[in-house]
Amino acid sequence: MNNIAVIGAGSWGTALSIVLADNDYNVNLWARRAEQVNEINQQQTNSKYLPNITLSKNIKAFTDLSNALENTEVVVLVVPTKAIRETVKQMIDVLSQPVTVIHASKGIEPGSHKRISEMIVEEFSETNLLRDVVVLSGPSHAEEVSLRQPTTVTVSSEQKAASELAQDLFINKHFRVYTNSDLVGVEIGGALKNSIALVCGLTTGLGLGDNTKAAIMTRGLAEIARVGVKLGANPLTFAGLSGLGDMIVTCTSIHSRNFRAGKMLGEGKSLDEVLESMGMVVEGIRTTKAAHELASKLDVDMPIINALYAVLFEGLHPKDATEKLMGRVKKHEVEELSMKFLK
Amino acid sequence: MNNIAVIGAGSWGTALSIVLADNDYNVNLWARRAEQVNEINQQQTNSKYLPNITLSKNIKAFTDLSNALENTEVVVLVVPTKAIRETVKQMIDVLSQPVTVIHASKGIEPGSHKRISEMIVEEFSETNLLRDVVVLSGPSHAEEVSLRQPTTVTVSSEQKAASELAQDLFINKHFRVYTNSDLVGVEIGGALKNSIALVCGLTTGLGLGDNTKAAIMTRGLAEIARVGVKLGANPLTFAGLSGLGDMIVTCTSIHSRNFRAGKMLGEGKSLDEVLESMGMVVEGIRTTKAAHELASKLDVDMPIINALYAVLFEGLHPKDATEKLMGRVKKHEVEELSMKFLK
Repeated sequence: MNNIAVIGAGSWGTALSIVLADNDYNVNLWARRAEQVNEINQQQTNSKYLPNITLSKNIKAFTDLSNALENTEVVVLVVPTKAIRETVKQMIDVLSQPVTVIHASKGIEPGSHKRISEMIVEEFSETNLLRDVVVLSGPSHAEEVSLRQPTTVTVSSEQKAASELAQDLFINKHFRVYTNSDLVGVEIGGALKNSIALVCGLTTGLGLGDNTKAAIMTRGLAEIARVGVKLGANPLTFAGLSGLGDMIVTCTSIHSRNFRAGKMLGEGKSLDEVLESMGMVVEGIRTTKAAHELASKLDVDMPIINALYAVLFEGLHPKDATEKLMGRVKKHEVEELSMKFLK
Repeated sequence: MNNIAVIGAGSWGTALSIVLADNDYNVNLWARRAEQVNEINQQQTNSKYLPNITLSKNIKAFTDLSNALENTEVVVLVVPTKAIRETVKQMIDVLSQPVTVIHASKGIEPGSHKRISEMIVEEFSETNLLRDVVVLSGPSHAEEVSLRQPTTVTVSSEQKAASELAQDLFINKHFRVYTNSDLVGVEIGGALKNSIALVCGLTTGLGLGDNTKAAIMTRGLAEIARVGVKLGANPLTFAGLSGLGDMIVTCTSIHSRNFRAGKMLGEGKSLDEVLESMGMVVEGIRTTKAAHELASKLDVDMPIINALYAVLFEGLHPKDATEKLMGRVKKHEVEELSMKFLK
């Protein structure tokens, strides 16, 4: 069967549709708005999300979820974290065949602290409609993928055959796909780097430079690895594409929403003003809430995430947060890192 | 004793002098050119290397090495890798007291494959003039350090007391200093990231984007860790400031000479043209030669360094090098990383 459903027609869902169409699959791309569906089908563009890109005719858009899911065994799910449960519920209502779900979203649910694959499995649990769940993650701005610029990503699942299926569907000469069996590590790395990107944006907005940003990223990755390992992740995953690689892209690229949102906060805008002017989901904000809860529940030291939480939700000034982080304590680096990576 | 000699008045030697002067030490800054020494002493500026920065009067410049080294037990050595041996020889000629040498250079010697501290120890070996040798490394652009922007670095020595001495000399509220006992790892990370920065420059010069750069950095760090571990380094060091941190800064910042040189190569300039237009030492070029030799001697797989070597010295086109690196092999990420980090 050569039909693949892609659920969510934002920039990332559309870019992944382009990769699949380049690989000769028929893509059923689901979007909520009829206007957007018409534009994709009639003009082969999705101008709000990927301006100046012409889409293949192998990509057909639908507003009707049951049409999009017809005759497909693979569903690529690319919606914001907070829409995951609701979208899966709607899928279950109309699915008649079991599917493999490949999700490409990045976040953790506040309150439950569930990863995206856990939320998907939970929603499908009363049905026989879920074959496997796979995550696709890595340093991959949608704009660059749509331009066929060389990109590398990781796919991960508890089932080796499922991650190999995802690898086979997506791999091509511009888009290199690695498999990794550490689902927890891949999902945690992808989610939490958004918080670190917010902090890098904050320091940039305060006028601080590349030295500070590199310090935040290095210590931030150690912090993410520490919480990941407590949740059962393989520490090496954080040194890979979905950890380090994705963090680099998110913290240093002009394309990153989380970085841009952090920069506005650092420049003195309020959280409400920032959210309003972004007009798109800033996953790092909700994720920071979840990560802060998680750090306290697991008793893991996360100074950077906690400082960000205090800025976002407790009114701490970004300048005070940065000064606190760069305090005067003398430390031995490898002892700190080993604690983080090996604990 | 509150005199510290800083040997080398380029941008990094001058920035480190600023940190020491801020910490109330008297700095004897040695430079080769009389003109530069006069500018520093009379106008308190070093305009070629750190424009728009006023230096403290605690910094006194000398052209005479014996004057610079008088009454000091600590020498901060900041000269290009290829000048290390010659400079140490000259120091030995005029030193009358033993000194601790803190070096802040980044490279490996082609032919011998010696790290900088090894070269220093070797040159001092027939004397009683070397107390200890320490390396100072990390994500630290000189320009930003001179502006007192928050910066973190690592100091490392085989002697714990020596690295703690270096930590005490340099630490202040803008400049956070961590100790690390892994001298090999700190020196190898600092040296080899310059090659990876050249490759990131190459891909940028070819018009490729942030996805490619993040992939090169992630796989590049794994490659560096692999050779480092073979040389006896602690793999965790490469996840720290002198590994990951320094690589981020060098590969993503406008200040990086190695990145700029790589970019010009990617845009089609020849190596000779690039070297001429830089006017400053591009450490990564010699280091790539040494690393390429080392990879073959130690039988370590270093595809990125080897591709760069072929571009620099064997006439391979940067575009062909990139395509080769992004080839179509399907791989399992963590197996690859474990090989790299744990071997």
